[in-house]
Amino acid sequence: MSKDDENKGYSGVQTKVDWPSATLENLHPADAADHLEQLPVEERVEVLKGYSIDEAAETISEMERYDRVELMTHLPPEASADILEVMSPDDAADILIELSDDVRTNILRYIEAEDAETIADLLKFDPETAGGVMNTEILVLDQSLTADQAISLIRSEVEHSEIPYYAYVVDERRHLMGVISLREIILSRPGRVLKDFLKDQNLIYVTYEVDKEVVARLISRYNLLALPVVDHEQRILGVVTVDDVIDIIHDEASADMQSMVGAGSDETVDSPWTYSFRKRIPWLTMNLLNSAIAAWVVHLFEGTISEMAILAALMPIVANQAGNTGHQALAVMIRQLALERFDRRKVFMAVVREVKIGIATGTIIALVTFAAVMWLTRNLGLAAVMSAALCADMILGAVSGASIPLILRSLGRDPAQASSIFLTTLTDSAGFFFFLGLAGLFLI
Amino acid sequence: MSKDDENKGYSGVQTKVDWPSATLENLHPADAADHLEQLPVEERVEVLKGYSIDEAAETISEMERYDRVELMTHLPPEASADILEVMSPDDAADILIELSDDVRTNILRYIEAEDAETIADLLKFDPETAGGVMNTEILVLDQSLTADQAISLIRSEVEHSEIPYYAYVVDERRHLMGVISLREIILSRPGRVLKDFLKDQNLIYVTYEVDKEVVARLISRYNLLALPVVDHEQRILGVVTVDDVIDIIHDEASADMQSMVGAGSDETVDSPWTYSFRKRIPWLTMNLLNSAIAAWVVHLFEGTISEMAILAALMPIVANQAGNTGHQALAVMIRQLALERFDRRKVFMAVVREVKIGIATGTIIALVTFAAVMWLTRNLGLAAVMSAALCADMILGAVSGASIPLILRSLGRDPAQASSIFLTTLTDSAGFFFFLGLAGLFLI
Repeated sequence: MSKDDENKGYSGVQTKVDWPSATLENLHPADAADHLEQLPVEERVEVLKGYSIDEAAETISEMERYDRVELMTHLPPEASADILEVMSPDDAADILIELSDDVRTNILRYIEAEDAETIADLLKFDPETAGGVMNTEILVLDQSLTADQAISLIRSEVEHSEIPYYAYVVDERRHLMGVISLREIILSRPGRVLKDFLKDQNLIYVTYEVDKEVVARLISRYNLLALPVVDHEQRILGVVTVDDVIDIIHDEASADMQSMVGAGSDETVDSPWTYSFRKRIPWLTMNLLNSAIAAWVVHLFEGTISEMAILAALMPIVANQAGNTGHQALAVMIRQLALERFDRRKVFMAVVREVKIGIATGTIIALVTFAAVMWLTRNLGLAAVMSAALCADMILGAVSGASIPLILRSLGRDPAQASSIFLTTLTDSAGFFFFLGLAGLFLI
Repeated sequence: MSKDDENKGYSGVQTKVDWPSATLENLHPADAADHLEQLPVEERVEVLKGYSIDEAAETISEMERYDRVELMTHLPPEASADILEVMSPDDAADILIELSDDVRTNILRYIEAEDAETIADLLKFDPETAGGVMNTEILVLDQSLTADQAISLIRSEVEHSEIPYYAYVVDERRHLMGVISLREIILSRPGRVLKDFLKDQNLIYVTYEVDKEVVARLISRYNLLALPVVDHEQRILGVVTVDDVIDIIHDEASADMQSMVGAGSDETVDSPWTYSFRKRIPWLTMNLLNSAIAAWVVHLFEGTISEMAILAALMPIVANQAGNTGHQALAVMIRQLALERFDRRKVFMAVVREVKIGIATGTIIALVTFAAVMWLTRNLGLAAVMSAALCADMILGAVSGASIPLILRSLGRDPAQASSIFLTTLTDSAGFFFFLGLAGLFLI
């Protein structure tokens, strides 16, 4: 079992897996993961048997979620246990939490008791929070140590793979007192006590239940390499590092784009199509109900349409144009809400800004449309009604696109979730109503 | 002029600005920037005069682009020059490139000749490339140095603010030979030559003209803290660091969401509304032309609609539902294209996957619609025509949503740009054609 091979302290179970020594050589684990993902799962298991255990662990860490779950489910549980034991406990917990309860319990039986306990503790954190994404392999130093004592302590830990660039300074009860870079320690006067490094330090940290997107925003906003995570008594639990944050930020932005149109926020091209089907069908059904509202508005004006069928041809233009205007406002607004906090005054200014853009674009497009309809139909009334409805609906689209994410958020919902569906219902229904209503009043 | 105050080597011009000493104390520059952005520009200038020059520089670095440009344009050029001189040359170049040519030239006149030359060199790099985003303040060590020689060199440089965590090892002609962490140097045997650290190192670097989004993907994929940037003879120029990448990744994902609907990819709620107006109006005009195509399809069937006006009420449902289905495929596909490279086989599988989802959701929604139309109208023919058109258009939507980003990319365009507009044109036109065409054949 890699470096713990001599240890026989497992929870009663012995591994039977023979892991070869290093074989990947010049292939980066991220590239090896790509290669594995292309293979059927049975072949994946075979290829993995040719890897050393460390290579297997690194490669699995880099795989896409669905491919990884499939692979871990097909591996013998003792092999999975071996692989998870060489990972950091938080990475192991991240993978275990994806698996089905049966598979997870089965694998945990083969993991050394002490490791299994650490992992089980980590599994208690919500994966969407700081506790769920933090790394627990950190360097913790007592504030009473001197710089040279700290250095010898660090040297003795150095064989443990990843020594970070920061150390976390604590008091005798593990309360976080400050952060110090290894460089600072190493370049300082040997006898200086760590406590003295911390004067006037602006310490930024979060408790474990803070949302991971908030963590990502803090790290991004304050250009941190790592953010400490503490419990409610301010005892250090771990850190979230900047490379975790890259994934969170990327996922968050993609999630917004996808949930805006009612796709699953965690869908990728690698998700099984049945998973995507289950995620999307509720929103498509909701969209059906919503577009039925727009259809009902048109239904009210069927008499008008029978008399003047060209209205049916022109009405989608009104709805479509207002929908596009609204989506532009929507996208900018969702981005802002994802980016950072948003005070009341700024919210108001942002809505006003979209209204101005809506009025300006609405006026221009209405004028172009007026000219086009006049040229094609020589019908002044129709051109006037069309351009008035278009302008009004585009302004409504701008207001709605700017407001819907704010309303969703104030209701405690994800500002992006299905926002496109709500927007389209509004711009379609109102567009048909404005256009057919005005036509009924002035043209028939 | 901060630390260079004693230097009198400016390009003939003396500064007249008196900068106070530190005042911000406990306010982080990112927060000070937020505060400043809320003020009218004249007040911003006043507040800034109360900051020390280093605080002013840090705060300006954290401001949003438009607010920053406005502020720098209102500051006396000698004050702007003072502020830019205390920044790293690449940060100064990033800000200068945003300014109008007049303002920039005016400020450059007040910058010390040597600094001005470094900055002017950086201004030559395209801001969308590795050269445009790289940091040039890096630690470069000759490969023939020993570890202890390297350490004394580092110590002597330590007063220069930001010492990074990595050093770049070069030969006598500044060719990049490898990367070494300060920790490795400091914890090693003193006499060890740097060259010996580099054995078997898998060096990842880019040339300066590589697109910054590619740089971001490399850093994210291989979990790097920094990526070296070299010229065509592999001489080190600078590095792109992980905190720059966070901004690039965030901007890229937001850009996709916005450009999908034809908003400017760099718009924020802080952009002047006139800027957004100019970015959006061309796409809204294009959307008008596209929705005119759908209107023309309906126009072909005006006779059918006059006879059966309920068709006009139901046809938006078909178009809307297919549009939603297509947008779900679009969002997942754009995300994947932003995420990483995409081989031919995976592209094909991704399109097939969306077709499967389209067939499954199309069938379910068609069945629900069939039942609803039967219940409401008791018209078997209408229910059959409606559900057939709906299912066909939803499958077309899935195929189009998956294909449009691929087609745009193979044409050398941004896969997201206006993709929503193209998609809607297709699903609207085809939906109206299927529905009204079938109705004309079977119902009239």
